[in-house]
Amino acid sequence: MNYQSTIFSKYLGDEQLLQLVSDEALISKMLQFEIALATTQASFNIIPNNAADEITRVLSQLKITPADLAEGTLQNGVPVITLLALAKDQLSEEAKIYLHYGATSQDAMDTAQVLMIRDVMEVMEEKLAALIENLFKCYNQYGETPCMAHTRGQQAIPISFGIKINAWLHPLQRQQQRLVEIKKSVLWVQLGGAAGTLAVYPDKAPQLIEALAKELNLYSSSQWHTQRDNLCMFTNWLAMLSAVLGKMGGDILVMSQSEINEVMENGAGGGKSSAMPNKSNPVLSEALVALARINATLQSQQLQAMVHINERDAAAWILEWSAIPQMIINTGAALNHAITISANMKVNTAIMKENVELFLQLNK
Amino acid sequence: MNYQSTIFSKYLGDEQLLQLVSDEALISKMLQFEIALATTQASFNIIPNNAADEITRVLSQLKITPADLAEGTLQNGVPVITLLALAKDQLSEEAKIYLHYGATSQDAMDTAQVLMIRDVMEVMEEKLAALIENLFKCYNQYGETPCMAHTRGQQAIPISFGIKINAWLHPLQRQQQRLVEIKKSVLWVQLGGAAGTLAVYPDKAPQLIEALAKELNLYSSSQWHTQRDNLCMFTNWLAMLSAVLGKMGGDILVMSQSEINEVMENGAGGGKSSAMPNKSNPVLSEALVALARINATLQSQQLQAMVHINERDAAAWILEWSAIPQMIINTGAALNHAITISANMKVNTAIMKENVELFLQLNK
Amino acid sequence: MNYQSTIFSKYLGDEQLLQLVSDEALISKMLQFEIALATTQASFNIIPNNAADEITRVLSQLKITPADLAEGTLQNGVPVITLLALAKDQLSEEAKIYLHYGATSQDAMDTAQVLMIRDVMEVMEEKLAALIENLFKCYNQYGETPCMAHTRGQQAIPISFGIKINAWLHPLQRQQQRLVEIKKSVLWVQLGGAAGTLAVYPDKAPQLIEALAKELNLYSSSQWHTQRDNLCMFTNWLAMLSAVLGKMGGDILVMSQSEINEVMENGAGGGKSSAMPNKSNPVLSEALVALARINATLQSQQLQAMVHINERDAAAWILEWSAIPQMIINTGAALNHAITISANMKVNTAIMKENVELFLQLNK
Amino acid sequence: MNYQSTIFSKYLGDEQLLQLVSDEALISKMLQFEIALATTQASFNIIPNNAADEITRVLSQLKITPADLAEGTLQNGVPVITLLALAKDQLSEEAKIYLHYGATSQDAMDTAQVLMIRDVMEVMEEKLAALIENLFKCYNQYGETPCMAHTRGQQAIPISFGIKINAWLHPLQRQQQRLVEIKKSVLWVQLGGAAGTLAVYPDKAPQLIEALAKELNLYSSSQWHTQRDNLCMFTNWLAMLSAVLGKMGGDILVMSQSEINEVMENGAGGGKSSAMPNKSNPVLSEALVALARINATLQSQQLQAMVHINERDAAAWILEWSAIPQMIINTGAALNHAITISANMKVNTAIMKENVELFLQLNK
Repeated sequence: MNYQSTIFSKYLGDEQLLQLVSDEALISKMLQFEIALATTQASFNIIPNNAADEITRVLSQLKITPADLAEGTLQNGVPVITLLALAKDQLSEEAKIYLHYGATSQDAMDTAQVLMIRDVMEVMEEKLAALIENLFKCYNQYGETPCMAHTRGQQAIPISFGIKINAWLHPLQRQQQRLVEIKKSVLWVQLGGAAGTLAVYPDKAPQLIEALAKELNLYSSSQWHTQRDNLCMFTNWLAMLSAVLGKMGGDILVMSQSEINEVMENGAGGGKSSAMPNKSNPVLSEALVALARINATLQSQQLQAMVHINERDAAAWILEWSAIPQMIINTGAALNHAITISANMKVNTAIMKENVELFLQLNK
Repeated sequence: MNYQSTIFSKYLGDEQLLQLVSDEALISKMLQFEIALATTQASFNIIPNNAADEITRVLSQLKITPADLAEGTLQNGVPVITLLALAKDQLSEEAKIYLHYGATSQDAMDTAQVLMIRDVMEVMEEKLAALIENLFKCYNQYGETPCMAHTRGQQAIPISFGIKINAWLHPLQRQQQRLVEIKKSVLWVQLGGAAGTLAVYPDKAPQLIEALAKELNLYSSSQWHTQRDNLCMFTNWLAMLSAVLGKMGGDILVMSQSEINEVMENGAGGGKSSAMPNKSNPVLSEALVALARINATLQSQQLQAMVHINERDAAAWILEWSAIPQMIINTGAALNHAITISANMKVNTAIMKENVELFLQLNK
Repeated sequence: MNYQSTIFSKYLGDEQLLQLVSDEALISKMLQFEIALATTQASFNIIPNNAADEITRVLSQLKITPADLAEGTLQNGVPVITLLALAKDQLSEEAKIYLHYGATSQDAMDTAQVLMIRDVMEVMEEKLAALIENLFKCYNQYGETPCMAHTRGQQAIPISFGIKINAWLHPLQRQQQRLVEIKKSVLWVQLGGAAGTLAVYPDKAPQLIEALAKELNLYSSSQWHTQRDNLCMFTNWLAMLSAVLGKMGGDILVMSQSEINEVMENGAGGGKSSAMPNKSNPVLSEALVALARINATLQSQQLQAMVHINERDAAAWILEWSAIPQMIINTGAALNHAITISANMKVNTAIMKENVELFLQLNK
Repeated sequence: MNYQSTIFSKYLGDEQLLQLVSDEALISKMLQFEIALATTQASFNIIPNNAADEITRVLSQLKITPADLAEGTLQNGVPVITLLALAKDQLSEEAKIYLHYGATSQDAMDTAQVLMIRDVMEVMEEKLAALIENLFKCYNQYGETPCMAHTRGQQAIPISFGIKINAWLHPLQRQQQRLVEIKKSVLWVQLGGAAGTLAVYPDKAPQLIEALAKELNLYSSSQWHTQRDNLCMFTNWLAMLSAVLGKMGGDILVMSQSEINEVMENGAGGGKSSAMPNKSNPVLSEALVALARINATLQSQQLQAMVHINERDAAAWILEWSAIPQMIINTGAALNHAITISANMKVNTAIMKENVELFLQLNK
């Protein structure tokens, strides 16, 4: 009954994004990190070229299933130890030594997560662009239609429907711009070693990090094991994005009430009822409001994760493990619904105008 | 990377409870509701016995997969419409009419959820009893051991380790008692019809509800479609239970620090590190703290669901769909870890006493 | 701009409850604790009668202002040290020794808080009873009026307005019953001494606690310094209560929309607008929704406080200091508004019936 | 018992910031808005120069107390109506007409809030700079000291104390940079009129807004009545800032434990205990952790406010009224404590080194 419920996977989930934050994606990205690390280390003569080649070859073809890692994750509090053990089973004695050389579990997991977030950002960028385009079309088609403004639940004065659309569109455009900035402060490689000092090769540490970042097409940064502000910038972006869509959903819920009937969420017909087959329920708009509230709550969980004690603190870190993927899925579902609504919404321009005229008559 | 992640299914999940709140459980419990409803209605001559028999026979054997319901749930905002349509495909024309007769989607979903919660409560009751038993054993074994109290992070005065165990045990015992009360106010059947009035058969409504409750072994109640306080009592119980375990985990994290070393979470060795193989990490205690914080946050989501407008409001209702199962799983994982810790914890009584003696010397 | 803002003190506050959780109340209740402690200890011959008499006499007349305690609270993280120092300035050398004898700061603060909560509960009990009475009157007057049910934002089927009133009334009645239970598990005296062991007089500890409880008319309990579940029961009660009122406010906001106009929050006229003087805004109902959401959020803060490490942990304890009084004030304001609305609400029965008839015509 | 408690005003508050978000500040900034609006409108010949002059003269000297506005705020759900009525009492018939001309309550309140936030940002900027300077000094003095890293509560490998300081310093430096950006997207004038359209003077609206922004030294923007993303950027900045300080506090709590004793929060002596006068409690660090958690929670309240329905929705707006000032005060208190700690912290370099040597011996 949550986002990974198959029943609710289309209503409160997004299959593409779910894939991008799945167990399989995590495994694949951790292996990608280990390969890139070995490759880079070889180029600095920190590990032998042979070892790096073998690591690349073996890990590229390694099949590890999520179930392989469950017991080890219970034992160790992270899946990396078991992942590495399984990889080492396939490696020569020499290459074993140089797998994950000088790195720590969090390096693999954080970099993997950043790589996953990069994929997520690409998908969201497209969805956001599609939504904005749809809203521009709405604006062009209906923007001039007179309708009543409502403040504090009451009819206020006549405005145009474009004012309402702009209240959705403008913050979405700001979110587009913010994403450009956030990429620069989130898409950072993580490489710190046991306690953030890259103790195994400290003199080459900065160059190694830079080369690894280049290899993975990420930004270079000194380690940020316990500095989780960047992730909170990203999740706040997700929470704000879904909140904008929550406002859009809330507006449509109000305007589509039977007695008001200024818009229909879906001109082709909305959700059905098991008791009242003739109903047409604005079920996507309801989900938009709910998903906004859920993400607002999850941001508080994610912010708590910043109180990350010492050099690694899973009591804080674990908070991120559910907050980040859940917020991503929630935002993806919300974007999908907003795209559907903005494409299919029926605007009853005649009723809008009628309401305005009635108001003007009564308030002459 | 959340509870339904297979990788983290043992560390941050509980497979038994996951099963009890799964899609499959929801489908099975909704079908159970529909069968019980038909059976009960037949006994009141509201529907023909033949129809009830056919509904019972067909629905008992009906195979519906979660994937069958995903698209319909997107369309209708609830899975019930599609579930009923699939059931009707297997029913005669007459029986079709009497399936879900006079009921609404929320009746099926709420009753199904309550049935799921009943199963969950049974499992939790056992886990809680096992934990309390373990803690009593700890108390008997180590309760008299002198150790230092710490207030505001500083050594305070000598106490006994039993004082610490009691700080975990007493609230757990209160939780046991509370569960008895909460059952009476949560395990309620839901039957209201389209808008809570059982409009199709209003004169027999109270008796019908009572009979249905009896059939399902639930408490009878007038409909509570929009009255979600009882569920919040249950989830607050979950949040408090995991918070008690979070306090236990936090205490063990402090006492197991290398420099203090008064306890080891697991006498047989704790979590390993990919960078430092000799480490023994208290990874279960860390999870206890994190799960407590996550459930504290989710309770705010669940409480928001009480602001449930009109006679049904999915913008509020949806908030429950992720909060309740997630809180259940989190609490289950926390109970498991607390049971493991209380069984395997190594108490270094010599070090505890030494710390007390050192303190007494310094404070003579 | 928050509850202690004078500007918003009537709209988002309650002056009586604010008084009951004020600095002045805290000082007065802490002094009451110290007097009761001395009195009780004298009756057990733990301290001399003379000292107890002097402590009672001096502390009864002691004038301590909140400002007197601010600097000391910064220094010590609790106000008690400075409060005791100021008291000792007025006491003889002998009595000084026996003030706060064997107690710790948290004993004074927790017991004071419980005493404050008892006063708060009395006020809330009255407000809740008044509200329930008003709603019964509403029910008697308007309960039979036919009106349209709305599910998922759409007209569903005709019901009576009484169904709506019951959705507010029933959970309020449950809250009344719950308060009776909660009193028994919250109104506990706190007396544990430095680390919960009452180390100064351990053999008489249970009797002393019982006598102190009797003196203060509270329940007796072994110390609960780090066991904060009882307080979370109370705050969850506050959160649920304000959430029920949030649902009531939300319903009224929907029904009072200009286009629907089935009720007016205040028959005598609602809130005005600076731009549109003819408006009548349902400003109390809006506050009901907002206060419900704020309290839902604060419950997560309060639950976090249960992760209370060691024998005293202000990093957790401080979370209670803002959550509890703020939730009390919020709930008080919400009760006030609900009482006002239930007394003054104008129900447009003609419009309700008209909407039903229109629906029946369209759905013949 | 919350931030506006006088008792806790120094421990959990900041008197300067409290002043900047006080009732008095709100009144003063709203009057400043009205004066600037009249002045600007006169310069566009929208209102007569005489009226603007009179408004400026009268409002500059108007004495309105918070208590004057309490009853009106209850009536109208905003203080602006009563504020304007009190102002009009002092104005000529002509000037009355032109006070608040074409504006709405939210224009006055939002612009006032932005002006308050600007003052707050200046103070925070100074505090943040002072803290960063202190931490640089710490780094210079102690950065090279070897000490043990701890991961997951256990000693890991030797690092230098500078690594720990950098984990506080780097995110603070990022916060400094972020503030520069956030100013550009928060310090926006608000002027929309009744429903965001500046209906009274639509043709000159853009120029008028620009001139008003210039007059108030704010950024120009089309109205953002229902677009609250910018405020959430600011509050997330506050939450992240206090979370960084929460991590710093958490680290100091760990290092200052009696058994570890690597640092003392305050070399001059910490908080006292009423039961154990010889204790030295790290009470500022505890507050840092608590304030971080409170602000994390409040950000979820603030994000909920973005689900702002229609053209004005106090059910959402009210959520901001307590979240924003409370988060400001919390952050201010946290900054104060971090400055104090970074100036007075005693670093026991000998003990740090000893711990490292002991570890190296044991792990040879």
